[in-house]
Amino acid sequence: MAWVALLLTLAAPVARGVENSVEQWGMFELALRGPTNGNPFMDVRFSTRFFQDDTSIEAAGFYDGDGVYRVRFLPEKQGRWRYATMSNAAELDAKSGEFTARNPSAKNRGPVRVANTFHFAYADRTPYKPVGTTCYAWNHQGEELEQQTLKTLAASPFNKLRFCVFPKHYDWNTNEPPLYPFEGRAPRTWDFERFNPKFFQHLERRILNLQKLGIEADTILFHPYDQGHWGFDRMTAVADDRYLRYVVSRFAAFRNVWWSLANEYDFMTEKSEQDWERFGQIVSASDPYHHLLSLHNGKRLFNHTRPWITHASIQNGSAVEDAGRAVLLRDAYRKPVVYDEVKCEGDIPKRWGNLSAEELVYRFWQGTIAGTYVGHGETYLHASAVLWWSKGGVLRGQSPLRLAFLRQVLEDSPAAGIEPIDEWQNPEYGGQPAEYYLVYLGKQTPTSWEFKLPNPPQGKSMTDGMQFKAEVLDTWNMIITPVESVFTLGKKTEYFWADKDGRSIALPGKPYMAIRIKRVTE
Amino acid sequence: MAWVALLLTLAAPVARGVENSVEQWGMFELALRGPTNGNPFMDVRFSTRFFQDDTSIEAAGFYDGDGVYRVRFLPEKQGRWRYATMSNAAELDAKSGEFTARNPSAKNRGPVRVANTFHFAYADRTPYKPVGTTCYAWNHQGEELEQQTLKTLAASPFNKLRFCVFPKHYDWNTNEPPLYPFEGRAPRTWDFERFNPKFFQHLERRILNLQKLGIEADTILFHPYDQGHWGFDRMTAVADDRYLRYVVSRFAAFRNVWWSLANEYDFMTEKSEQDWERFGQIVSASDPYHHLLSLHNGKRLFNHTRPWITHASIQNGSAVEDAGRAVLLRDAYRKPVVYDEVKCEGDIPKRWGNLSAEELVYRFWQGTIAGTYVGHGETYLHASAVLWWSKGGVLRGQSPLRLAFLRQVLEDSPAAGIEPIDEWQNPEYGGQPAEYYLVYLGKQTPTSWEFKLPNPPQGKSMTDGMQFKAEVLDTWNMIITPVESVFTLGKKTEYFWADKDGRSIALPGKPYMAIRIKRVTE
Repeated sequence: MAWVALLLTLAAPVARGVENSVEQWGMFELALRGPTNGNPFMDVRFSTRFFQDDTSIEAAGFYDGDGVYRVRFLPEKQGRWRYATMSNAAELDAKSGEFTARNPSAKNRGPVRVANTFHFAYADRTPYKPVGTTCYAWNHQGEELEQQTLKTLAASPFNKLRFCVFPKHYDWNTNEPPLYPFEGRAPRTWDFERFNPKFFQHLERRILNLQKLGIEADTILFHPYDQGHWGFDRMTAVADDRYLRYVVSRFAAFRNVWWSLANEYDFMTEKSEQDWERFGQIVSASDPYHHLLSLHNGKRLFNHTRPWITHASIQNGSAVEDAGRAVLLRDAYRKPVVYDEVKCEGDIPKRWGNLSAEELVYRFWQGTIAGTYVGHGETYLHASAVLWWSKGGVLRGQSPLRLAFLRQVLEDSPAAGIEPIDEWQNPEYGGQPAEYYLVYLGKQTPTSWEFKLPNPPQGKSMTDGMQFKAEVLDTWNMIITPVESVFTLGKKTEYFWADKDGRSIALPGKPYMAIRIKRVTE
Repeated sequence: MAWVALLLTLAAPVARGVENSVEQWGMFELALRGPTNGNPFMDVRFSTRFFQDDTSIEAAGFYDGDGVYRVRFLPEKQGRWRYATMSNAAELDAKSGEFTARNPSAKNRGPVRVANTFHFAYADRTPYKPVGTTCYAWNHQGEELEQQTLKTLAASPFNKLRFCVFPKHYDWNTNEPPLYPFEGRAPRTWDFERFNPKFFQHLERRILNLQKLGIEADTILFHPYDQGHWGFDRMTAVADDRYLRYVVSRFAAFRNVWWSLANEYDFMTEKSEQDWERFGQIVSASDPYHHLLSLHNGKRLFNHTRPWITHASIQNGSAVEDAGRAVLLRDAYRKPVVYDEVKCEGDIPKRWGNLSAEELVYRFWQGTIAGTYVGHGETYLHASAVLWWSKGGVLRGQSPLRLAFLRQVLEDSPAAGIEPIDEWQNPEYGGQPAEYYLVYLGKQTPTSWEFKLPNPPQGKSMTDGMQFKAEVLDTWNMIITPVESVFTLGKKTEYFWADKDGRSIALPGKPYMAIRIKRVTE
């Protein structure tokens, strides 16, 4: 270890004492006073190494204005951590100290990671099933509306929110934001070498607000809805890279942060594919905790097989339009697929923004049984001109209640995730072979459903006499009706097992029905 | 240039004089007598460098039995070529000579390459639109049946054939082949260090037979339909690699060869993903002409973004089952997608082998308007037990005639290829914006179709007054009916242009209709 304790002076915190205990997956922060002359954002290098046993992690620090430098750390292991600072400024260099990472509190499960190839789990291995929504610019609307959005989110089913770091200048969102990310003057006079700490402090409060609500902050780092209005979409490569490193140094220690390099990256005409590749590598390499990282497309899919991409964040207007389609990109990428944009519930005269609630809920279910995840958006016109999709505010649609129902179903589903069961033949089956099934009947309106299960893939066994219970789920009216019978398997064909007595399940002849089937194991 | 002419002796050809003129994209072959002691396959290194101006290409030679060594070369440029051999055997070393590559003959358009990202063209830039079929083991059936297959192919619409180098041991194909690829004794006593030249000479005759019919030879290098019967599916890594290099040295100079590393690669339980990656790199690096190269899957897609893969050869049982689905993998891979297996026309009791002819033709059309390509297979049971899909013979199905019709439509379509026009909204439109459209109505049976065209993407213009002619294509009955009217565009909505007078096209209320629309340019 290159770290020599004897050379280090004790770190002198800015104001109050440094916390000597934080939760595992909580945030340790060290604040130090340092140089204010010149340009601290450019002139001062400051980072800190954190040590525990064989683990050594370097976290970049950042200048937070008013002579204060901070470095943040997200301890992924419990126990005693020591640290030592490094800087080209004497006041920030060779400060050392230690703290303890203690048991996390009840709702702190750590950052979300990829699990079982196609799914997600918190660091403590609790499955995480995303039911996300989008309010691109909610954080640029001022205190009152932002508090209203938080209140709405608190009562909603959503556990992930997509939003942009940079403000948005687009239809239904042309108001100037209260704060800007750089020093300077709106609309276009910016000193890209000087960040505005207040802007980022505000955003951090919002990330923490979401964290307290159990909502993952799917943070969009670039977007095209600027179109040169402020020019944050057309900074130089040097300014882009510096911005990314600054954001990562500030946000990476928040456990609920996900990185979305862009929304509709391909609509940013000033950037090339090589830029996105470089951005991905910068974020991946500078984030010590490797938060989830993806890149959302307009029309042109990015190559989601790139190793720095953890999951495919996809916009596609038709991939969850019927059964059997959503799996194709899952098969191609072998990573979790989140269809973050599948058109919105709403009534605007844009064809991407006037789905019925029924259609959006239907699309969530189609994505679900295909072993993928789907995102919500809402674009109802209203006298207030506050559209949820852009500004937040209140939800006016009928889908969130049904997505709450879906989320309950997901929470009750196998930890290993819902997998497509018989891709090319019977895409209506999702689940885990021989254990659990969701059969989603979509827009069909049958009055009965023959109990039968596809032959499991190699390595999974199904046997005569296996028993299953079933429930009928009305996914629109949110009613779960248990089926009285216990179904007992008998081999039927090369491809199917069925109830040995040939029994069926009665259905009400309505659309949006699903059947939930669970193995009887006692 | 390291080549010093003075040191070289004249190459002494085996029998007759070396040809001193071959066609461009024809095959130059040099045959020399060399060592017969020891194991010539293992002991002798032999290659030749071919020179023209700044171009220098090394082609590996191979031992062809009976003391004869050959090296083959596919001249991609016309004019004078010189060559010089290199070997560790004196008789094969430092032989030099020259020949001329002359104008190609009428039907010789060179190897097929990727064109316009998603499509194909011959080296002379003539578009190549694959309409392929599959006879996995036709080349292992003996002279009589093989000649019958060639005769059938000659009268068929197919311009690509998938078949296996190794013999096949599988349902409906358990006969032993006339020849084996290695010296030894069937079923499992092989000297993997000694190839059987007669086996490969036979295969080369078949590749040439196909070439003369204008059929690309989509040559499958490994497959799982051995299951240890002969053990060609479970050779050592050293034997696998040697086999690949031998095949490439023999076949690469045939202009109509495509490399398919495997059929259903993921069903070959003895091979890992790393093996396939290595195989791909070996074939790509050892083929001086970079023939088309892909890897066909069973259930698990390979990562077709890998740089050595030229196009995605896909098996998928449902990707062309409706409109709007096939594009997803095209979007993911940004390469030509050939759905080489989409289930077969036939009547076997396997669910992958009993499509109706109507359904298979429908799938071809769905693939076509999505800007992808589809492959044919036929599995009709018959007293002879000769199924086309495996052994060749005669075609019994109703789809080939309709695929001939489709191929005519393709030959008449824009050189740039058919592209999806409005992916998420109107997947029934394929073509080139503002120039050419195929609107495929599939299983719908409308009696009229309103003339309207989606707004073209950025960079393409559509204007008031643009004129189009239309034809109604009955894709099943193969009837083309011109529509008398000329349609004149007027802007209709944000998303569509339509005929300014609101005219429609009358349709017969039958399924499988398409509308072909061409810009009037005079």
